[in-house]
Amino acid sequence: MTPIVVQNIERPDLSVIDGLAACGVATVHEAQGRTGLLAPYMRPIYAGPRIAGSAVTISAPPGDNWMIHVAIEQLREGDVLVLAPTSQCTDGYFGDLLATSAQARKCRGLIIDAGVRDVRDLTQMGFPVWSRAIHAQGTVKATLGSVNVPVVCAGALVNPGDVVVADDDGVCVVPRADAPEVLRKAQAREALEHSKRVRLAAGELGLDIYDMRGKLVQMGLKYV
Amino acid sequence: MTPIVVQNIERPDLSVIDGLAACGVATVHEAQGRTGLLAPYMRPIYAGPRIAGSAVTISAPPGDNWMIHVAIEQLREGDVLVLAPTSQCTDGYFGDLLATSAQARKCRGLIIDAGVRDVRDLTQMGFPVWSRAIHAQGTVKATLGSVNVPVVCAGALVNPGDVVVADDDGVCVVPRADAPEVLRKAQAREALEHSKRVRLAAGELGLDIYDMRGKLVQMGLKYV
Amino acid sequence: MTPIVVQNIERPDLSVIDGLAACGVATVHEAQGRTGLLAPYMRPIYAGPRIAGSAVTISAPPGDNWMIHVAIEQLREGDVLVLAPTSQCTDGYFGDLLATSAQARKCRGLIIDAGVRDVRDLTQMGFPVWSRAIHAQGTVKATLGSVNVPVVCAGALVNPGDVVVADDDGVCVVPRADAPEVLRKAQAREALEHSKRVRLAAGELGLDIYDMRGKLVQMGLKYV
Amino acid sequence: MTPIVVQNIERPDLSVIDGLAACGVATVHEAQGRTGLLAPYMRPIYAGPRIAGSAVTISAPPGDNWMIHVAIEQLREGDVLVLAPTSQCTDGYFGDLLATSAQARKCRGLIIDAGVRDVRDLTQMGFPVWSRAIHAQGTVKATLGSVNVPVVCAGALVNPGDVVVADDDGVCVVPRADAPEVLRKAQAREALEHSKRVRLAAGELGLDIYDMRGKLVQMGLKYV
Amino acid sequence: MTPIVVQNIERPDLSVIDGLAACGVATVHEAQGRTGLLAPYMRPIYAGPRIAGSAVTISAPPGDNWMIHVAIEQLREGDVLVLAPTSQCTDGYFGDLLATSAQARKCRGLIIDAGVRDVRDLTQMGFPVWSRAIHAQGTVKATLGSVNVPVVCAGALVNPGDVVVADDDGVCVVPRADAPEVLRKAQAREALEHSKRVRLAAGELGLDIYDMRGKLVQMGLKYV
Amino acid sequence: MTPIVVQNIERPDLSVIDGLAACGVATVHEAQGRTGLLAPYMRPIYAGPRIAGSAVTISAPPGDNWMIHVAIEQLREGDVLVLAPTSQCTDGYFGDLLATSAQARKCRGLIIDAGVRDVRDLTQMGFPVWSRAIHAQGTVKATLGSVNVPVVCAGALVNPGDVVVADDDGVCVVPRADAPEVLRKAQAREALEHSKRVRLAAGELGLDIYDMRGKLVQMGLKYV
Repeated sequence: MTPIVVQNIERPDLSVIDGLAACGVATVHEAQGRTGLLAPYMRPIYAGPRIAGSAVTISAPPGDNWMIHVAIEQLREGDVLVLAPTSQCTDGYFGDLLATSAQARKCRGLIIDAGVRDVRDLTQMGFPVWSRAIHAQGTVKATLGSVNVPVVCAGALVNPGDVVVADDDGVCVVPRADAPEVLRKAQAREALEHSKRVRLAAGELGLDIYDMRGKLVQMGLKYV
Repeated sequence: MTPIVVQNIERPDLSVIDGLAACGVATVHEAQGRTGLLAPYMRPIYAGPRIAGSAVTISAPPGDNWMIHVAIEQLREGDVLVLAPTSQCTDGYFGDLLATSAQARKCRGLIIDAGVRDVRDLTQMGFPVWSRAIHAQGTVKATLGSVNVPVVCAGALVNPGDVVVADDDGVCVVPRADAPEVLRKAQAREALEHSKRVRLAAGELGLDIYDMRGKLVQMGLKYV
Repeated sequence: MTPIVVQNIERPDLSVIDGLAACGVATVHEAQGRTGLLAPYMRPIYAGPRIAGSAVTISAPPGDNWMIHVAIEQLREGDVLVLAPTSQCTDGYFGDLLATSAQARKCRGLIIDAGVRDVRDLTQMGFPVWSRAIHAQGTVKATLGSVNVPVVCAGALVNPGDVVVADDDGVCVVPRADAPEVLRKAQAREALEHSKRVRLAAGELGLDIYDMRGKLVQMGLKYV
Repeated sequence: MTPIVVQNIERPDLSVIDGLAACGVATVHEAQGRTGLLAPYMRPIYAGPRIAGSAVTISAPPGDNWMIHVAIEQLREGDVLVLAPTSQCTDGYFGDLLATSAQARKCRGLIIDAGVRDVRDLTQMGFPVWSRAIHAQGTVKATLGSVNVPVVCAGALVNPGDVVVADDDGVCVVPRADAPEVLRKAQAREALEHSKRVRLAAGELGLDIYDMRGKLVQMGLKYV
Repeated sequence: MTPIVVQNIERPDLSVIDGLAACGVATVHEAQGRTGLLAPYMRPIYAGPRIAGSAVTISAPPGDNWMIHVAIEQLREGDVLVLAPTSQCTDGYFGDLLATSAQARKCRGLIIDAGVRDVRDLTQMGFPVWSRAIHAQGTVKATLGSVNVPVVCAGALVNPGDVVVADDDGVCVVPRADAPEVLRKAQAREALEHSKRVRLAAGELGLDIYDMRGKLVQMGLKYV
Repeated sequence: MTPIVVQNIERPDLSVIDGLAACGVATVHEAQGRTGLLAPYMRPIYAGPRIAGSAVTISAPPGDNWMIHVAIEQLREGDVLVLAPTSQCTDGYFGDLLATSAQARKCRGLIIDAGVRDVRDLTQMGFPVWSRAIHAQGTVKATLGSVNVPVVCAGALVNPGDVVVADDDGVCVVPRADAPEVLRKAQAREALEHSKRVRLAAGELGLDIYDMRGKLVQMGLKYV
């Protein structure tokens, strides 16, 4: 495989990206039929952020972060870096210097199926990262990889320009072409959930709201 | 096994439950002879809370959260939900809607040997959860389970009405019948620890407070 | 092996220790040639602290914390306790009473390749711990170990008097004799990084700052 | 909890035990409604054996195998030892000497939610073990536990006299009172499977044997 | 996503498949530039087999094996089943009945990023499986999935008709279009390795065969 | 740290090494006071072999096996290779070509805290390996390490010339200077165990052989 950098990729509208961010991972995941979730070992380095961005993907050799420098040049506002090593690796590919550079290019965060370091600095900078590991072990710059090619990241296929949504629940990828439709479904779901939340908060039971009692009895549930 | 819901369970006095909460997991665990601890993979979704409650137990099929709706109707003030899947599972059984409903019924929290989602919302609501995983992957409502039957949760046997204590150190279960006696021992232990803490803070050594020097030498410890 | 306590160990200058603390784990690790890192499963019980200290080491039997009492007597200002069990163990060796005693002797923290408990109290006290596990399961005081002997902790060799640096990125050990030289290199590295951070924040690219473009093309990277 | 040894326990008929052994774990597990399975980390130390036995249970402290000696005296022909530590532990509680003693009393094997050692000898002796770990680290004989009390072993509740079935697929526990009925269902299941196996081996498809085609289409499956 | 079964897929020539099988996973992986490897947690249920086949892929819901029945109808001689659950799952999707059916259709084995059971029977039948887990826990037949669509299996993208090579070292996928070229390179590599093996067996050193001594010295290696 | 190769190391007598091999890991580990065990994740690639050898140690960069070629030149009859990566890594550093070369120099096996590949060939050659992982992922030859320096391998300190004993129970290291004394103790232990094995096989109980009954009662054990 020749190492390549794909420079012109299509991105979703920022309004779609921002709409998906507002819905959050669990809702977006449901809205697209329970697909697209990265493995649950991908955890935020600090709690709280909820972001979405257009993926700039990096396929990197194990223990080699050279291509992150290459990828940063490809970043535009609203992008998120998504790095998948070609072999399982927990080294710390990314730290505060790279974050400074990415943030200067309006990158919203990093999704990395490997390790990250300088976590204290990244937290203070407000640069969110979802990673497989936190590891001070650094990397080298010796072997090429590719930028903006399809990658498998934490078990999910991510194409450049796909929308990546991330929050405390994990990370979900939405194919670019599906993003507007998924947003529509996610927002409809949110509206529906809002009305239910009000009723549940008032003390109504899900058993009644969802009309489950008959079916439970019919399937054989006994109250004793 | 016929799926059942046991409606009338005995609960400990709220005063006993609240007393155990004040002691915390490590002290309660010691006070009942180092038994009752759930596996250490059970972690709080956010740091800080220290709770105790009377267990409403749920035995649920893997990937199916239907019985949580059934269990919520059984909740009374001072209860805690305890869910054990019948086969190992990390799916996100529980999110902000169920938490809203449980909180409306004065449930104090959830102990779940599986996954949870909407962690950001649960944190904002102040609804504490101890879980095996955080996972946006949802569940279905297709198969029955049981409510208020004995369950094995994270390696510990929990009967309905047992007291479950949980904090940053993990989760400990106290059999209902033993709860008043365990509380008495835990409080005695706390009193004792308080006096030691004062002496240690003043610079006295455990070697002297516990009179260990002679025994150490006798067993063969050499100072060089 | 006769259980021993080595009372007179050499320690680095406090100024060297404090200098290394200010640099942090990732920088120190790089400065000494990417060696000395403990395994990444060693995590802080709460985020934020960045410390360094002179190691007082403890080789302890599995599930037995007796030697921590012995070790505390050996503590001086600027020390850190480093405990390695002789067989893998996740029991909670250390809690708020021992922390009170250690803090009274100006100990800066604990690095333990096992479990810790009373995490809520330790957090409130501001006593930082890096551990393999959080576990309420206590230990006994029945078997001897040794204090201030070389130990292998989380995969790294730690000699008494070595400098241990710890922060959100993990834990790194610096041999005592190397500490001044490593500090010098770490500070040089920090100075260099500062100037780069300014340029990166201003929007310059690493590709240009590090003059990578030519080499990337020469190695075969294609822009498409 | 006072340490006790329950000497008179009821056991199932050997014919029931042997019948369940012949069916194997997967079939027995299905026959009792998919319950009773121990966690899948319980693996045989060598491939091939398929056994069942009446449980003689051991609740043992972490790292202490004293109670195995006590339990061996309680063994009768057709029994299996089931050991659960009171706190998670991977030490090697059991080796060739204990196996020699157990085998002399016609014990059929060991199920242990901890470690085992002398695996080479046990294999040569034909003494099967299902364990969480293989670990040469030995244990002490310092603290009491109990024999023939209910234990939670690898996530499953085991009462003394329950039937434990074990093979390459793992371990399943059948409550003593249910054993005859579970055997009947398991044998019926085996008979049914035999006829299906013949048809499948002849090239018939499950789609036809189980009459699935209509339902698949009705649920929306498209052939393209 | 509508559940679909793609019936007409292109397959590589059997001669290419068999050639790749003869080379084995490590050689094939090297020959295609160190890509295509599934995660190392994919292990054979018994040691020894070395196979290759054309992938018939299955995207299945967690805990639901219905689509395996559908997939078996699509099997032709030289095929291998490749199953990826849509959410992480270790249930035992596959046992001896399904293996009997697959074997009747000349399927060469199964690659499954989930669990398998009836391992003893599969071993006796000589039906090789590479899986994430061995687990007696069965599955249901309630929800549709798809057959012969692209799947991500243990971290690798597998398209229907890709060649899957598997042996004791793990599993590697070769895109169908690349298979002839990868075979050519793998065979060239094997020839080269054969000549080296002869020289190494005769006592020559890799240092001399690969002419490494000069470069080692030049990079700074010191012999002391 | 300058990369070095220490050429002249002291080795124990072959008779001591062979004596320790005959005793096996569990006995040797006990004989030296329960120290020296590598972590239990180190497993043999095939069951059965029991070896001991004088350690030729390799400190290697992650994902780089260059130094193995260097180390092979240092091998003498009775040696075992011991490789520790400087950062956690599961890549396959070692395969059949290196094994052919090592075997030609009468190396007895490999202990590697990383991955190995060509497992099928190694098994057929009878070249035993204990490793953390089996992984087809190869390595590069780009960065230097050192040979015959102290390394920490799977949590244990190994000096060049130490005796490494390995069998199905795992791996244990014996410091060179202690080896004759440990052998003596191990053989004494074996003699003692032999006499006990005969008595246990004849049906005597450990309770009687070790005279435990009185102490059990005295400590509070109740027979009911």
